[in-house]
Amino acid sequence: MKVAQVLHMNGGVGHASYANNSLVIQEKVICLTKPIREEAITSLYCNTVPRSLAVADLGCSSGPNTLLVVSEFIKIVEKLCRELNHKSPEYKVFLNDLPGNDFNNIFKSLDSFKEKLCDEMESRIGPCYFYGVPGSFYGRVFPNQSLHFVHSSYSLHWLSKVPEGVDNNRGNVYIGSTSPTNVARAYYEQFQRDFSLFLKFRAEELVKGGRMVLTFLGRRSDDPSSKDGGYIWELMATALNDMVLQGIIKEEKLDTFNIPLYTPSPSEVKLEVLKEGSFAINRLEVSEVNWNAFDDWNALEFESERSDTLSDGGYNVAQCMRAVAEPMLVSHFGEAIIEEVFSRYQQILTDRMSKEQTKFINVTVLLTRKA
Amino acid sequence: MKVAQVLHMNGGVGHASYANNSLVIQEKVICLTKPIREEAITSLYCNTVPRSLAVADLGCSSGPNTLLVVSEFIKIVEKLCRELNHKSPEYKVFLNDLPGNDFNNIFKSLDSFKEKLCDEMESRIGPCYFYGVPGSFYGRVFPNQSLHFVHSSYSLHWLSKVPEGVDNNRGNVYIGSTSPTNVARAYYEQFQRDFSLFLKFRAEELVKGGRMVLTFLGRRSDDPSSKDGGYIWELMATALNDMVLQGIIKEEKLDTFNIPLYTPSPSEVKLEVLKEGSFAINRLEVSEVNWNAFDDWNALEFESERSDTLSDGGYNVAQCMRAVAEPMLVSHFGEAIIEEVFSRYQQILTDRMSKEQTKFINVTVLLTRKA
Repeated sequence: MKVAQVLHMNGGVGHASYANNSLVIQEKVICLTKPIREEAITSLYCNTVPRSLAVADLGCSSGPNTLLVVSEFIKIVEKLCRELNHKSPEYKVFLNDLPGNDFNNIFKSLDSFKEKLCDEMESRIGPCYFYGVPGSFYGRVFPNQSLHFVHSSYSLHWLSKVPEGVDNNRGNVYIGSTSPTNVARAYYEQFQRDFSLFLKFRAEELVKGGRMVLTFLGRRSDDPSSKDGGYIWELMATALNDMVLQGIIKEEKLDTFNIPLYTPSPSEVKLEVLKEGSFAINRLEVSEVNWNAFDDWNALEFESERSDTLSDGGYNVAQCMRAVAEPMLVSHFGEAIIEEVFSRYQQILTDRMSKEQTKFINVTVLLTRKA
Repeated sequence: MKVAQVLHMNGGVGHASYANNSLVIQEKVICLTKPIREEAITSLYCNTVPRSLAVADLGCSSGPNTLLVVSEFIKIVEKLCRELNHKSPEYKVFLNDLPGNDFNNIFKSLDSFKEKLCDEMESRIGPCYFYGVPGSFYGRVFPNQSLHFVHSSYSLHWLSKVPEGVDNNRGNVYIGSTSPTNVARAYYEQFQRDFSLFLKFRAEELVKGGRMVLTFLGRRSDDPSSKDGGYIWELMATALNDMVLQGIIKEEKLDTFNIPLYTPSPSEVKLEVLKEGSFAINRLEVSEVNWNAFDDWNALEFESERSDTLSDGGYNVAQCMRAVAEPMLVSHFGEAIIEEVFSRYQQILTDRMSKEQTKFINVTVLLTRKA
């Protein structure tokens, strides 16, 4: 399984597409981390007063949230320009994801996005140039010192590959409660290699004083096998194990399936940043969002469009995970078992969510490229 | 009909897709104009010795020819660097087309393209960064003075819209032998407006001394209704008129269909460049390619893959035109008549090609942004 080929959200705008389901979690996370971006963008702008601002969203995906951060970024800068009586800068917006991402879908929405943004601002804004940039952020993506602001939300917990040396992770798809200790170590080491490379490359691409805001799906605990990091994947493993027991999936097929993901703790993130050395840490925060993110919103706000979906948390979460995991599962297990996996997964999720407080933990870090 | 929404080549890699059929004409044209690009790139490099080279292909489309010019560009520069014992520059490659273009298809091919390029060069080349840039080149696409070299092949004869005031162009889809004189004038004026805007915007985007190589589908004659410019469309109109006579298409439906295209003469191109004033003309050349471009190649070269298609010129040309025109025809006439149109068109083309020398005329201009 080549990660770069299967790690993409379900394309298009269909029923199980990421475009419909990502809203739930991703939009919430983007809202929660807004104050950190405001701080980053304000200090970046006020310290440098650039005539041209180059901003990159890494792992931009393709859905309603793709341009949310871009719109927020431009609005913050335009507001600052008005307050300070400055001329608007020019914006270069780089949207990056793996080559399998549905860039066509983003590109087709850009004209209406720009129109809407201009309407909302009620006045002229600086010229905006948009670029799609395909490629893994574990390699170089941009020229030297060409970016002022880098954003990445809910992408960096994806590793460049499944770690080596996890062959004995039987019956699990990630670090689970029954995983041997070498498995957690192998995952952590892969995270260290990947994230330090990420930092090294971004340090080359950012201008001195450039800012970076990164949000990982993470955990609070420093124990990598703690429940808050991988519980949702452990429940997917439960569904798959049930299907092994019933002979629907071959045992060795499950034993050789592992997710290329790591949910780091704040101190693990901090340690890599300090070791790599190019960035100062301005903020390091933990937030959380319910698995069924609709629970967090004011239900009234969504009454008209979404009230029918509010009731079934298990369905919402299964759909959301499906949008994320389906390409990987299909690539390893084939198309035929997918409906069954997610039907069982939904039941398990519904059961767990009725008995426990189930939350995703987000680790967000604000970094400044040292001079 | 919104031109920006229907003016795109058939996507994907299917039977009637541009990717399969564009090869015939486009590749030939790119070959024919190579000496002009070599001259442009060599003089650009030797006069400026840039550490970073930004090149844009406008109307890049999505097929085997999309990256042909990019690969040639990089090879020419790398060869110069070796001869002059220079360090390779960094390359920024901007691939532009309308938002409906299949950028996903290009992005998925980039990794293998880069691998192949490195293999062919047999040594390290400068770092290459690729960007997809959706948007009409009749508007601003890039920041001020951000490009060194602009290329566009077989795109600029497409107008930003069908000219106004061609309501009386009955039974024609472009300037035809029976078109009233106001039709040719309306088309020419639209070309003047569009091309002068194009030049103005590119003048803003190119650095001083930057080069631009543009190839139009054009004509030799200064008479816009001459056969060498629009004959292939006149034959499409013949097919459509036959279907009107047989009651398959409503007459008013055909009467309101006009192609947003203009095939300029060399002197018309020259005049706009001189009027706009930002560019010096280094070269202005006319070349030609058979409608069935396979005729131009050494048949042996293609024997293994393509010998079956060589024989039927009418089919080849109809398929090529289908890849270009199908989205426009579907948008105006609906899906149902398409097979019939192209079946009739093919017969007409086969007949004409057996009786006449039928050629596309290409107008290529090499321009330098004045200091």
